[in-house]
Amino acid sequence: MSAKKLEHVRIVGSGLIGTSIGLALRVNDIAVTMVDRDATAQHLAQDLMGQSPSSAPVDVVIIATPISGIKDAIENENKSYLNSVFMDVASVKTKVKVEVSAFPGLSERFVFTHPMAGREVGGAQSARGDLFQGRAWIYDSDSVSSDALELALQVVSVCGATAIELAAEEHDQAVALVSHLPQIAASLLAGALEGAPSEWLDIAGSGLRDTTRIAASDPTLWREIISSNSGALLPLLKNLSADLTTLIEGIEDPSASEALIARGNRGKAGIPGKHGGAARNYTLLPVVIEDKAGQLAALFDECAIAGVNVEDLTIEHSPEQFTGLITLALSKSDAEKLYRHLSNTDWKVHSPRN
Amino acid sequence: MSAKKLEHVRIVGSGLIGTSIGLALRVNDIAVTMVDRDATAQHLAQDLMGQSPSSAPVDVVIIATPISGIKDAIENENKSYLNSVFMDVASVKTKVKVEVSAFPGLSERFVFTHPMAGREVGGAQSARGDLFQGRAWIYDSDSVSSDALELALQVVSVCGATAIELAAEEHDQAVALVSHLPQIAASLLAGALEGAPSEWLDIAGSGLRDTTRIAASDPTLWREIISSNSGALLPLLKNLSADLTTLIEGIEDPSASEALIARGNRGKAGIPGKHGGAARNYTLLPVVIEDKAGQLAALFDECAIAGVNVEDLTIEHSPEQFTGLITLALSKSDAEKLYRHLSNTDWKVHSPRN
Repeated sequence: MSAKKLEHVRIVGSGLIGTSIGLALRVNDIAVTMVDRDATAQHLAQDLMGQSPSSAPVDVVIIATPISGIKDAIENENKSYLNSVFMDVASVKTKVKVEVSAFPGLSERFVFTHPMAGREVGGAQSARGDLFQGRAWIYDSDSVSSDALELALQVVSVCGATAIELAAEEHDQAVALVSHLPQIAASLLAGALEGAPSEWLDIAGSGLRDTTRIAASDPTLWREIISSNSGALLPLLKNLSADLTTLIEGIEDPSASEALIARGNRGKAGIPGKHGGAARNYTLLPVVIEDKAGQLAALFDECAIAGVNVEDLTIEHSPEQFTGLITLALSKSDAEKLYRHLSNTDWKVHSPRN
Repeated sequence: MSAKKLEHVRIVGSGLIGTSIGLALRVNDIAVTMVDRDATAQHLAQDLMGQSPSSAPVDVVIIATPISGIKDAIENENKSYLNSVFMDVASVKTKVKVEVSAFPGLSERFVFTHPMAGREVGGAQSARGDLFQGRAWIYDSDSVSSDALELALQVVSVCGATAIELAAEEHDQAVALVSHLPQIAASLLAGALEGAPSEWLDIAGSGLRDTTRIAASDPTLWREIISSNSGALLPLLKNLSADLTTLIEGIEDPSASEALIARGNRGKAGIPGKHGGAARNYTLLPVVIEDKAGQLAALFDECAIAGVNVEDLTIEHSPEQFTGLITLALSKSDAEKLYRHLSNTDWKVHSPRN
């Protein structure tokens, strides 16, 4: 018996994760209906799908609401989609599992999943169809029928993610360490900046920016994640506190600082690189521009003339500075093409780098 | 009297910073002699300069050794280069100032500086001529002659950095907050990963990677930085410890977690640069575009027609996606003006938001 092919997915929750899943499905010509309690978010998300909601039978209902909305969403959707497969994408799993168990017969067609991807910015407007490319996507197949699991794994596969089975309880311990603890560390650090003289913040290098990037995350989302996973988090937070106390007590002793940094080196070395930034293989092309109106438009005109496609860019401009640094991200061949093109003009372009 | 033009710079310390300065000077045809106690590092660094050491008079001696080597380096160099200007590039300033004061007559030709740039990888092999482009470069002109200051600022300018004056004591407080505290937070967090099951680390998203990027930094460098700046760091570490204790005590209470993340949001919003401070007063205008070449240029043409000034922008799109999302950052009035303009065209523009 061949497996059913995914044709129509209904995504409840038009935030970053739900909308990004929708975009990935659309690339593969799967019909997507976006739903949200907020009509503006729903409208933007459906617009991004490039098609109207479908009236075809719903194969999979994806619950992509904040944690506090999951119970109500399941209750509503389960009334209308009694034969559809359900999956959630929440950051904590044991709590959702308890909620699903309250609906008779739902457990065998409900797959608990968690895509290990996100951004520090939220909402449909931040969604990306490649958000899950090369990322891990955790699932728990406990008590799920094989047909339901098959459809849920099609979603994971279409999104370009790698399905990894992990029981709900172990999942919650793992994400406490690799996701929730980093969020807390970044937020604590960024919180220490509040009220600092702006002259001090102006001189910060990229280390501060990277370390605090996720500190821009949504407080209403994280209040639920942290408190829903407090059991797994608490021992980690106590250890962190003890390590910090050790450093404070040894602050005058260079060997205490060296031990701290060396231990960080070892911990850092254990993080694999494969799911990271390297997943997007862009070449970077730095261009120094005068910091005045019209320069960006002129630069993009040059890109159009050269026939290259800009995949992403960053703009660095410091206060009191007359120049800005634009770093364009392009494919390797486009970067080389644009470099040659701009080298023959007045633009201050630097060599492409990976 | 016109200022002396920089012709030959001697850089003592062929690590990441010293060699990167050398590369930037070479781009501007200034002769560079690289020096290091380690002959291999010195040789590699000089090779990267693309020329042999110069025999021309030395205008500036840059002390770019680790902190523990600064005193010896000054002593050695000051014997041979009695008329040259000196500058250091160390991460802490008050300690260096005390050391320089021990050499009679040196203070008026020694400029204390600190380029706010670095990488988590070290050594001449990691050096980049554009490392300082668009970065702040702190200096303290206290008791320095105007001729000496002029030459030191030429180095800063040639490197593409922005010179910012900050007294040594204030510098040390500022970097404790924006550089040393982030290093400690990243290292503490990465340290917590040591010994974790590799399956857990395999599922980590980019948040963990970014938050711990600088945890790969050199322990022998940082043992000196942290202990040399312990006075400024200690109160910050104690506050961090107290904030962590508050979270631990309120871990079951969602409002405690929300307060932590919200405070982090506010602190993060003060950091300038990409998506940060300078952009914080801008209004954002999301525009969905077709993902094909020329669309960005066409959009900027519309901006020119509407007479608005684009301050910053982000591009969200995926390699295989049908649509891309451009978020333009503009002044509030320009955002409204462009929104009205684009609403009358075929562009898929969404409501401005702050």
